[in-house]
Amino acid sequence: MNLDDLHVDLDRLHGRLVALGKIGALPGGGVSRLALSDADRAGRDQVTAWMRDLGLAVTVDRIGNVLGIRSGEVDGPPVMMGSHIDTVKAGGIYDGNLGVLAGLEVIAVLNDLGLATKRSLAVGLFTNEEGSRFAPDMMGSAVHQGFLDLEEALAVRGIDGAEVGKELERIGYAGSEPTGSVRPHCYFELHIEQGPVLEQEGILIGAVEGVQGISWTEYLIKGVSNHAGTTPMRMRCDAGYLAAAIAVEARSIAREMGGDQVATTGLIEFKPNLVNVIPGQALITVDLRNTDEALLQAAERRLTSFVEQTADAEGLDVSARVLARFEPVSFDPSMVDLVERVARDRGFTVRRLPSGAGHDAQMFAPNCPTAMIFVPSAGGISHNPAEYTAPEQIRAGADVLLRVVLEKAMK
Amino acid sequence: MNLDDLHVDLDRLHGRLVALGKIGALPGGGVSRLALSDADRAGRDQVTAWMRDLGLAVTVDRIGNVLGIRSGEVDGPPVMMGSHIDTVKAGGIYDGNLGVLAGLEVIAVLNDLGLATKRSLAVGLFTNEEGSRFAPDMMGSAVHQGFLDLEEALAVRGIDGAEVGKELERIGYAGSEPTGSVRPHCYFELHIEQGPVLEQEGILIGAVEGVQGISWTEYLIKGVSNHAGTTPMRMRCDAGYLAAAIAVEARSIAREMGGDQVATTGLIEFKPNLVNVIPGQALITVDLRNTDEALLQAAERRLTSFVEQTADAEGLDVSARVLARFEPVSFDPSMVDLVERVARDRGFTVRRLPSGAGHDAQMFAPNCPTAMIFVPSAGGISHNPAEYTAPEQIRAGADVLLRVVLEKAMK
Repeated sequence: MNLDDLHVDLDRLHGRLVALGKIGALPGGGVSRLALSDADRAGRDQVTAWMRDLGLAVTVDRIGNVLGIRSGEVDGPPVMMGSHIDTVKAGGIYDGNLGVLAGLEVIAVLNDLGLATKRSLAVGLFTNEEGSRFAPDMMGSAVHQGFLDLEEALAVRGIDGAEVGKELERIGYAGSEPTGSVRPHCYFELHIEQGPVLEQEGILIGAVEGVQGISWTEYLIKGVSNHAGTTPMRMRCDAGYLAAAIAVEARSIAREMGGDQVATTGLIEFKPNLVNVIPGQALITVDLRNTDEALLQAAERRLTSFVEQTADAEGLDVSARVLARFEPVSFDPSMVDLVERVARDRGFTVRRLPSGAGHDAQMFAPNCPTAMIFVPSAGGISHNPAEYTAPEQIRAGADVLLRVVLEKAMK
Repeated sequence: MNLDDLHVDLDRLHGRLVALGKIGALPGGGVSRLALSDADRAGRDQVTAWMRDLGLAVTVDRIGNVLGIRSGEVDGPPVMMGSHIDTVKAGGIYDGNLGVLAGLEVIAVLNDLGLATKRSLAVGLFTNEEGSRFAPDMMGSAVHQGFLDLEEALAVRGIDGAEVGKELERIGYAGSEPTGSVRPHCYFELHIEQGPVLEQEGILIGAVEGVQGISWTEYLIKGVSNHAGTTPMRMRCDAGYLAAAIAVEARSIAREMGGDQVATTGLIEFKPNLVNVIPGQALITVDLRNTDEALLQAAERRLTSFVEQTADAEGLDVSARVLARFEPVSFDPSMVDLVERVARDRGFTVRRLPSGAGHDAQMFAPNCPTAMIFVPSAGGISHNPAEYTAPEQIRAGADVLLRVVLEKAMK
């Protein structure tokens, strides 16, 4: 048969998205399914039930990752699709769910046609991608791909004091399968963009080139709290001034560097935080991201040098603490090409772009050919009940996923 | 007799400061005597008892200002000394108390020697200078000098819901004397600097030239909250950036203008205030002060223009709210000269300086020749239990007060 005649069933896929979104649904819209919560268990139960209905062989590994496998005509590593179904505390119904359920839709389309693939197919649901209850995020995929020790992960305690290992047992997802026993031939993840680029440029499909490297630094600045009226400018040790200057400089670095460099000061706190008192203490964070490690390091160096020189000049004491640091991840160029080509062949508008957020796919990228497909997020909003991607955009994304999977699974 | 032979009695003055500081004393040091509280009543009772002991004729006016008058050889307006004895919630024992008790010490020195003055002398204790419980501050002196309506002041409700008029009755200080019935010939106020200038420059006496004008503006900035990783720099409406840029610009305006111009951003708040979220809202205050109204207006114009232009360029919505605005007050040049000359004649180091904080004296300045004498504040600290001025500095300040009062009262 001609692959052009294959079509995903939007009603079925969208129906599953809505049904899964009802598990842990929030009263005003959106969904709360923190990792390893009762709602996560109920969501997992639903997804594994769908996997079994589709005839997949379901395994659960020791960190709770669920894999549903459809055997191919030959032995060997499967073409894997996947993502996660845990959410932030008040999230939307799309996010990771789309990647998992679109994977199931690919299987369903093939089942409907009785179409066998040469290679096996797998759909993965990875534990605790969000990291909202347990740190670090992308926990299940990190353990699966050997970047996080299993025992260490099982011992992690969450914001509520609960332990990952015990919570896995409690919800019945402490599986027996060794982690990483199934190594994929290649890995695809469909995801909402979580940013505004596709929507603002009127583009349907993003061919994701990689994931930005992330550098989070917190600066604690100590000066001298004093009266705003009686202290001449020359006698001030104004912790608030340095904090503000860091925020302005970080943005100026990103603007001057251009490209994918971004810089954000999202958090600031002054003490005592009164109109007429010079801040004696200020806390500020800078979030720097770039797809290129050398450029990210250059941004870090420029900012560090500015902070040190300005603190010296102002007589302020600054301590810098790294809150997070991940190197950029590049996806396999031939896989990115494939996504772009397939999308274009289907007549969809497509552009290459980096992912500004972390995804399970970045754990697979160092070990197997990996790619991601983005669909637009309305208003760039995600991790929010208002998260929205239109049905036609979902259909297009799943359609691309179906075709890239078949390209890799048929050869 | 030779005026050079007159000396204040430091033990007596310091003893009264310490005794008054025990009324409303805080467990760990410092004092809490909010206006019209029980502690304020007890402090007033003590000070009026001392006034009567010194033979002063005590009157209480309708806003609770207490005046102790020592008659002179001729009828006519008195040379007035004064300040306040209310404190912030956790203040020190010096602040306004020093001005009132040094006034009593001047009287005591003259009484000891049986020395009559040509003009009458008055020592004033003005209601609610701090404004910590009831707004506005400098309430008693403002009513006394006709800048605040009596009935309006009596109707003010405090942070605890209490009403000024009722509290005055409750503590027994709703006097019958019409406010402002005693117009001073001239007014002197001894006060701690509440800033670091005198201490850092090793100077004993400040001849205060005036009180800085104050301009407080709050900016509420509205942008769009978005993901710090997935939102390219060009697509941001970053409320936090403008807030930081305003703080940096305000400081740069003050630095460039020089002179007495100061600028402070003491308060800042981002929403949602998370490391990886572009702030959708920011609140920031700017406190501008100058001794020259034209320069203060120039600073305001520069800042306003920067805020408007930057907000436009960034696509941000800003609303500015004036929280406070007072024009600068200049003291009578001949009175400032007198303070400076007397201090120098006594061999004290002296410099002219503006007051960065508000004082009762500024209410008198438009209506009669007025001056203030500053003594150093250790570390520039005030409105704090750690407030400290050394006994020798207190002696020097009271000594200057004694002599400037006699210069004006003997002629």
